Amino acid sequence: MTTKIGIINVTGYAGSEIARILHNHPDVEISSITGRSSAGKKIGEVYPHLSDINLNISDEISGDPDVIFSALPHAASAEKIQQLINDKVKIIDISADFRLKNIDVWESTYNIKHPCPENINKSIYGLPEIYKKEIKNTNLVANPGCFPTGAILANAPLIKEKIVEPTIINDSKTGISGAGRTSKLEFGYSEINENSTAYGLSGHRHQPEIEQELNNFSNKQKVKVTFVPHLIPMTRGILGTNYSMLIKNIHQKEIMDLYRDFYRESPFVKISEVPPTTKQTWGNNNCIIYPHVNQQNGIVVVITALDNLVKGAAGAAVQNMNIMLNIPEETGLEQLAIYP
Amino acid sequence: MTTKIGIINVTGYAGSEIARILHNHPDVEISSITGRSSAGKKIGEVYPHLSDINLNISDEISGDPDVIFSALPHAASAEKIQQLINDKVKIIDISADFRLKNIDVWESTYNIKHPCPENINKSIYGLPEIYKKEIKNTNLVANPGCFPTGAILANAPLIKEKIVEPTIINDSKTGISGAGRTSKLEFGYSEINENSTAYGLSGHRHQPEIEQELNNFSNKQKVKVTFVPHLIPMTRGILGTNYSMLIKNIHQKEIMDLYRDFYRESPFVKISEVPPTTKQTWGNNNCIIYPHVNQQNGIVVVITALDNLVKGAAGAAVQNMNIMLNIPEETGLEQLAIYP
Amino acid sequence: MTTKIGIINVTGYAGSEIARILHNHPDVEISSITGRSSAGKKIGEVYPHLSDINLNISDEISGDPDVIFSALPHAASAEKIQQLINDKVKIIDISADFRLKNIDVWESTYNIKHPCPENINKSIYGLPEIYKKEIKNTNLVANPGCFPTGAILANAPLIKEKIVEPTIINDSKTGISGAGRTSKLEFGYSEINENSTAYGLSGHRHQPEIEQELNNFSNKQKVKVTFVPHLIPMTRGILGTNYSMLIKNIHQKEIMDLYRDFYRESPFVKISEVPPTTKQTWGNNNCIIYPHVNQQNGIVVVITALDNLVKGAAGAAVQNMNIMLNIPEETGLEQLAIYP
Amino acid sequence: MTTKIGIINVTGYAGSEIARILHNHPDVEISSITGRSSAGKKIGEVYPHLSDINLNISDEISGDPDVIFSALPHAASAEKIQQLINDKVKIIDISADFRLKNIDVWESTYNIKHPCPENINKSIYGLPEIYKKEIKNTNLVANPGCFPTGAILANAPLIKEKIVEPTIINDSKTGISGAGRTSKLEFGYSEINENSTAYGLSGHRHQPEIEQELNNFSNKQKVKVTFVPHLIPMTRGILGTNYSMLIKNIHQKEIMDLYRDFYRESPFVKISEVPPTTKQTWGNNNCIIYPHVNQQNGIVVVITALDNLVKGAAGAAVQNMNIMLNIPEETGLEQLAIYP
Repeated sequence: MTTKIGIINVTGYAGSEIARILHNHPDVEISSITGRSSAGKKIGEVYPHLSDINLNISDEISGDPDVIFSALPHAASAEKIQQLINDKVKIIDISADFRLKNIDVWESTYNIKHPCPENINKSIYGLPEIYKKEIKNTNLVANPGCFPTGAILANAPLIKEKIVEPTIINDSKTGISGAGRTSKLEFGYSEINENSTAYGLSGHRHQPEIEQELNNFSNKQKVKVTFVPHLIPMTRGILGTNYSMLIKNIHQKEIMDLYRDFYRESPFVKISEVPPTTKQTWGNNNCIIYPHVNQQNGIVVVITALDNLVKGAAGAAVQNMNIMLNIPEETGLEQLAIYP
Repeated sequence: MTTKIGIINVTGYAGSEIARILHNHPDVEISSITGRSSAGKKIGEVYPHLSDINLNISDEISGDPDVIFSALPHAASAEKIQQLINDKVKIIDISADFRLKNIDVWESTYNIKHPCPENINKSIYGLPEIYKKEIKNTNLVANPGCFPTGAILANAPLIKEKIVEPTIINDSKTGISGAGRTSKLEFGYSEINENSTAYGLSGHRHQPEIEQELNNFSNKQKVKVTFVPHLIPMTRGILGTNYSMLIKNIHQKEIMDLYRDFYRESPFVKISEVPPTTKQTWGNNNCIIYPHVNQQNGIVVVITALDNLVKGAAGAAVQNMNIMLNIPEETGLEQLAIYP
Repeated sequence: MTTKIGIINVTGYAGSEIARILHNHPDVEISSITGRSSAGKKIGEVYPHLSDINLNISDEISGDPDVIFSALPHAASAEKIQQLINDKVKIIDISADFRLKNIDVWESTYNIKHPCPENINKSIYGLPEIYKKEIKNTNLVANPGCFPTGAILANAPLIKEKIVEPTIINDSKTGISGAGRTSKLEFGYSEINENSTAYGLSGHRHQPEIEQELNNFSNKQKVKVTFVPHLIPMTRGILGTNYSMLIKNIHQKEIMDLYRDFYRESPFVKISEVPPTTKQTWGNNNCIIYPHVNQQNGIVVVITALDNLVKGAAGAAVQNMNIMLNIPEETGLEQLAIYP
Repeated sequence: MTTKIGIINVTGYAGSEIARILHNHPDVEISSITGRSSAGKKIGEVYPHLSDINLNISDEISGDPDVIFSALPHAASAEKIQQLINDKVKIIDISADFRLKNIDVWESTYNIKHPCPENINKSIYGLPEIYKKEIKNTNLVANPGCFPTGAILANAPLIKEKIVEPTIINDSKTGISGAGRTSKLEFGYSEINENSTAYGLSGHRHQPEIEQELNNFSNKQKVKVTFVPHLIPMTRGILGTNYSMLIKNIHQKEIMDLYRDFYRESPFVKISEVPPTTKQTWGNNNCIIYPHVNQQNGIVVVITALDNLVKGAAGAAVQNMNIMLNIPEETGLEQLAIYP
């Protein structure tokens, strides 16, 4: 029997991307979709590229799906999930609501009271490269943020093996779709094209998420992350450049081996011998990692490339679903990147 | 004594572009600027690239400028101009309010009652390549629309010399800044990048403007214009491709001569022997025209390139100001296009 | 038994796109790939996004594939095909070598002697929307050009039903990948970004191809096509705007019905009620058509959108392969467009 | 009497940009231009946007210009300069040939023997914000590299005041025009658009240049720079993000004051209170700096934005010329950035 899927807030970029991917997934069927302002419309009216998906957008999820993806904004998502959660349904939350395990950190980061803190501990942080076993056994996955996905995958091997000081710089360059489907003036084409800028210097919401996860790999010292995101004029893609100080003598070959070994059971992590380009991941679920030892300066530079809407959001969510459903992790995600 | 300038609604793209150009104009000084929602701010707070202009944005024009540019939306512009108009001030209206001489056409096109129809006949259509003498003697100029500028300059010589059927197709490709400084979702970077589309097929407001002006060159037959604008992913520039049917046998050399002759006193119109690129006009006031006779099919194709914010708006406005002030037409507009 | 595929010149954009699509095709397996200057390399060394395809690039096709795609340039392609052609292999030629049925037109258009004119008549013009039956029964398909695909699909219903004068204007706007994987200065990023231009006004090679195919729908009068391609700053996509003069009174509803009927057995042609955007087809095999009657001017405007590398090249080639192999036309081409 | 200018290799992006800027400079006149493969052509044939400059491209500089700009590649530039250098002519070298004072470092960096090492010590590193007095008194200026301009201006105040460890990370994001007017496949539009990547991780030629200049501000400890440039999809602009470790307790206000004070006589350096965008400098000579203290992590992040072809090349060269000619530094460089 085909697994039935519900998607809450299908009308954002993450939600529509989940619909796009699942439409060609062999083992599931989208049965119910919701959208806040577009209820009553066919999905093809909102997203013409999804016209082949013959579904109407509703106010509420119906028909008891086996798996529900929530692509609502933070707080709204937890509130809705609290209504839907039960023993039978598997829920994957794209929002940030269950990512931070420390409720105080969450509340000060998102500047709002958490709607259902009791579910935080039931949830698993949905980075399959680290928590595959736990994801298989949970009913509530907190899908990682787009920046943290790259930052954690880049630095976990270094921190775990105590190769670097636990003081990480992550300089990320993101395409604009990361801002979501928004009508803000600052994301208008004329403002973004031929332009780039840094933002979030006084503190970005993804920083505690990166620190929380890297801390799990650090024995004693707390990991400090200086995270500076940059907007660059492209639609999709995050290029992350990570800097940390060597505390061990290590050669390029050894570091390549370390990364290959660390990710040997992670089909979507590719270790590259040259700096990756974001376009190599355009539309697919890979995260490509290139670690580079600069022995002269005692620094390791780790470059990551991924598609913020796929491995950084919808693709990771489908990967989590596959693991929760106990089907091969790659199912429905085999599509190669589109190039050029 | 320096001429004092007021700019109404300096916070749109056309208004800020007038400020940018006039800042380096040797004969004038911006003395008063207004903006609807930004009153009280320095202009550099809204537009950091204009930080060197040391002016505050006000609610209302003050200090009796000698020349006022209005960059308000249609209807709002005419209303404001009615308050300011008098014998001493020269007004250049960037909006569409005084472009159409037939009040009924204006009202059905813009779907609103005209706030001051009595001023329509006092105004001159500000295309200096056609109305230089009249512009010199008026106090109210209706600055042309961006698409009409290219379409009229492309077709006027052909209609005047009765070389083609007065049935014109204008297929225009425009950068996104033509939509103004807007926060609409459809002009977001993620929507526009790697995308293009046609719009306005059921009737664009610039069509009657093109027809009105081309009709002035047609003796008997009314000119019919099929105008199809297209959005393409760039910030600035309009590329216009005009098609019309030959009714006279004419050779490429003759048509080149015709255009050169027609525009011999128009310093900003360049006749090119190859198809122009929009980037050749990026940031400057030129309109480049390439007419091409296709004798096999009995068709003339005329290509135009211009910067929609300069020759299509702010540059033309300054050119009109220069003519009204009786100073050389090119003053302050000598800047070459920026390339690449 | 799985069908074995050979791809000649896999290193161009069309060739690599065929590889990308076939990698996920359920019924075939790529067994042999060639590339002129990259022989000896793994395909992932040339195209990192194809690293999952575990194949080396050879000098020559080997292993007797069941189907061969040739993505060589014109003339070189026909020469190679002549060596490979036999009763057992099905060949799909992406080049222009077998598209024009009149050898004189071909030779004057491509300005070279045709290497094997005897094969021209064996070949079928591979536009499945028109020649599905013939494609099923041939061993040599001439895959259509990217511009002709849109222009023919847009105008065939109008010409066939004698609704318009057979004098067509096709104003096409293409992304840069249509120029192929080339190192020409003029296609450099700094030259193309924020730029657009017309080209080919003295005659583009795709014009006789469009005329040949539309002539098949015209009883007496020869169809004349004025074809003006334009480069616009995007990688993929062709937006075509077609203009022709009505000779019959027809309403919008009737024309919509005509197109829907004409293409009712063409799964990849979608008739739209609004102007399509190229991004709706980004990475997939659809051609979206919007016909619009302008009764005031007696003109029909037909807009088409397609991905030049998919429906305009590699996708159409796979569609032809499916038909030749007698498997469902859509197999392996179900992927939705990627948006945003 | 007007100063006469020669430009060697006007056909590259830096050379043409010098021509563009000088065309509107009130005190000088371009009298002789050369270009390697375009000799004999008018400059407007190579660069249509420069059609108003009525000059032919020659093989050699003629007419004894007062100032010569060389925009030749490295090594070729020094060789040509050696032929032209004398007591009367002022030379500004855009190439890297005289930037590094240590000949061994130069030769190992550029991997070629220096054509005229004897001139290295006569030359001044042309960063007016640091060497204004020396530039005024030299006849040979080594115009700084585009990346070093931002990196040096960002870090000099911190190193000089011993506020940070002399171990600097510079993560730079550059537009593609920095690669020059090149026909390399990898800089093609289809390769660059919707893409970004890091490069030069094993050592970029600008690194020793940055270190040399920052070392002049460091008392004892040698400055180590980890420099990672990134290509991002835009034509113009460099965004630099600099990271260094605080060794002094300093507050945001103090650091703002430090920068304002350090650059109080540098008209083209603007200290910003928010992160700058590259577009704020599009086409003009400003370098905008935003220093940000992250006290929690003990890090200073300094962001710089500049136009790589203006402040990063041609604009700086004209600024140097003005200083050498003893005319106001800003002459001919007053043009505001073009936005949007």
